[in-house]
Amino acid sequence: MLGSSSLQFSVTHRDGRARCGILRVPHGDVETPAFLPVGTQGSVKAMTPRDLVETGTAMILANTYHLALRPGADIVRDAGGLHAFMGWGKPILTDSGGFQVFSLATLGKVDEEGVTFRSHIDGDLILLTPERSVAVQNDLGADIIMAFDECPPATSQRSVLERAVERTARWAERSAAAHSREDQALFGIVQGGTHEDLRRRSTEQITALEFPGYAIGGVAVGESPEEMRRVVALVAPLLPEDRPRYVMGVGNPEDIADMVSCGADLFDCVIPTRHARNASLFTRRGLLKMRNLSLARDFSPVEDDCPCHACRHFSRAYLRHLYSRGEMLAGILGTIHNLAFYQRLMAAARQAIRDGRYGKFREEWGGYPREAAQEEGPAPEDPLGAEA
Amino acid sequence: MLGSSSLQFSVTHRDGRARCGILRVPHGDVETPAFLPVGTQGSVKAMTPRDLVETGTAMILANTYHLALRPGADIVRDAGGLHAFMGWGKPILTDSGGFQVFSLATLGKVDEEGVTFRSHIDGDLILLTPERSVAVQNDLGADIIMAFDECPPATSQRSVLERAVERTARWAERSAAAHSREDQALFGIVQGGTHEDLRRRSTEQITALEFPGYAIGGVAVGESPEEMRRVVALVAPLLPEDRPRYVMGVGNPEDIADMVSCGADLFDCVIPTRHARNASLFTRRGLLKMRNLSLARDFSPVEDDCPCHACRHFSRAYLRHLYSRGEMLAGILGTIHNLAFYQRLMAAARQAIRDGRYGKFREEWGGYPREAAQEEGPAPEDPLGAEA
Repeated sequence: MLGSSSLQFSVTHRDGRARCGILRVPHGDVETPAFLPVGTQGSVKAMTPRDLVETGTAMILANTYHLALRPGADIVRDAGGLHAFMGWGKPILTDSGGFQVFSLATLGKVDEEGVTFRSHIDGDLILLTPERSVAVQNDLGADIIMAFDECPPATSQRSVLERAVERTARWAERSAAAHSREDQALFGIVQGGTHEDLRRRSTEQITALEFPGYAIGGVAVGESPEEMRRVVALVAPLLPEDRPRYVMGVGNPEDIADMVSCGADLFDCVIPTRHARNASLFTRRGLLKMRNLSLARDFSPVEDDCPCHACRHFSRAYLRHLYSRGEMLAGILGTIHNLAFYQRLMAAARQAIRDGRYGKFREEWGGYPREAAQEEGPAPEDPLGAEA
Repeated sequence: MLGSSSLQFSVTHRDGRARCGILRVPHGDVETPAFLPVGTQGSVKAMTPRDLVETGTAMILANTYHLALRPGADIVRDAGGLHAFMGWGKPILTDSGGFQVFSLATLGKVDEEGVTFRSHIDGDLILLTPERSVAVQNDLGADIIMAFDECPPATSQRSVLERAVERTARWAERSAAAHSREDQALFGIVQGGTHEDLRRRSTEQITALEFPGYAIGGVAVGESPEEMRRVVALVAPLLPEDRPRYVMGVGNPEDIADMVSCGADLFDCVIPTRHARNASLFTRRGLLKMRNLSLARDFSPVEDDCPCHACRHFSRAYLRHLYSRGEMLAGILGTIHNLAFYQRLMAAARQAIRDGRYGKFREEWGGYPREAAQEEGPAPEDPLGAEA
């Protein structure tokens, strides 16, 4: 398949089904399992690229849907591609826009050709097809791009999910046929909701197309965390051993620790960045609510042993003050910390796999406190809430 | 006077009335003329301290009124002072809160004792006196602190301005008497509106108190730019040659260039930071409105010869995209650029003085395009607008 040679993936260590390895793409190497922060509109919110590198981030995700609407793929292409446009020289993955079309836009007609929807920005009527999604992603120029899929809510009727599986397979083929850049690797996406037979069928159909990597889509779309993990535990081992496996839109630290144990390699999620803007900071003991009065005189860092810029230079009391006053610096420092927390989690997971103690690591992260990653109260720095 | 020895000021070069020199305070040296970015609530909006240092900033201003209300001077004191609290190891100047009491709060009673006002945050009734202002500033621990003054609008009746001059002199004496820290230098403030005789009288009264430095207050409070400059041109030469002269709350590049020619040494203003959040970026040719459609495909930096992080790594087109989408990174990069622009202006002014060509420099900056530094349209990252 076109672009297959632009990606090299080698598993270096295994511990049960968990594995760690190196993903090599044109803009650099990524140690796996890896977490990709979300840069919805060509910016990981509140982060300069150099801040992002400092958190340990090796690869990010950007959203095709958002970038296609604004500023438009042609502008990004003329800027020299997304890497040049956003000043991020390391690897990028773009999604296909499928998820956003079904979740953010006012949905029009969905038929075999593609999806007609109204832009959430200006109400323009737009047709997105597999060909169009891939053309836009070719313009954006990410290292890894995704096939266009139909992504219904997990709570949809079986008939809807079944239709989505079949259509996703046909669209995957059309996506592959439309792909025109040798330097981008196109991944296929497995759908099927929480139905075991549909997931198996989708996995067979998509893997038959011989993509250089595979994603488990249709997760974190309304099902319970237990169902979500069950789906990943089912699908991941069915995917080819020698290709990277990407779980889309996940998740909480416990979810990630669990899915790594199933053999998943890549994750993206808005949780660390969105939580940071909502004053929820990650610590090993759970989420710290930064507007809490109890922190007003707490002059210790968010986490004592955290090497991030926020923890090395600022106290909980200062961060609480910044959050309480709606200062932008709160979102900046909070995002630095939360992403550093996630990247340290991934580094620790990799080390645990190398050391052959992943089972214990998985247990340690079990029951990590969960909180919906949604806007809560004023988030002045994020008026659009348009991440993901 | 207590704290006089904590400050050393030496003029190293003169060109007409313009002078450049070194201001030495406990947290470091500041080359003058200097521009102090405004960190109203203990944060220069959108900036980490390291970003700020990179813009060439050597000293910042923080607002006593805001910090006294939130988080409270006791918390800042217990954190080890403002330098430790906000992670800024370089010099800080705090104002007295006088200006904010008269501009932001709902004013209650103003009498000889002090000012009773309602907090703009929660409506609490608060009495601010010279003693209280200095006690709070002693707690905050800035290198330079300001006497508590009465600062009526420039458009006030002469009788109001005259009363403010007399009261400001008495309050300056009380401020000096209340000051209790050897490591902080207390500056006196000249008032008097746009009345030449009142300005002369206030200057005589305040300089008689032998402060280690002097501020020209009651400027940029409703008078025209021409009147403002006339006041500074009048007062600056009347202040002692061997003490630093600080023009409060000014200004536009042309104002600064003009006032330096009158012998002013220190400036603070919200213009560069607020303009940055409002998508107005400074260039040598004037303000660039970053949401302008004409920039959509402009892949050049904001300024070709600017060495700031924003100009070295990002294009006008990218910044336009970020501003248009309300991304926090717009405010971050814009603030970096605008502060770097101001600090380069100051460095160029110092060099022009050293080179004996300040008159030409002053001319070159004459007529710099002026724009009100007020909120215009959505400024999502600055919901409080509470800078200054």
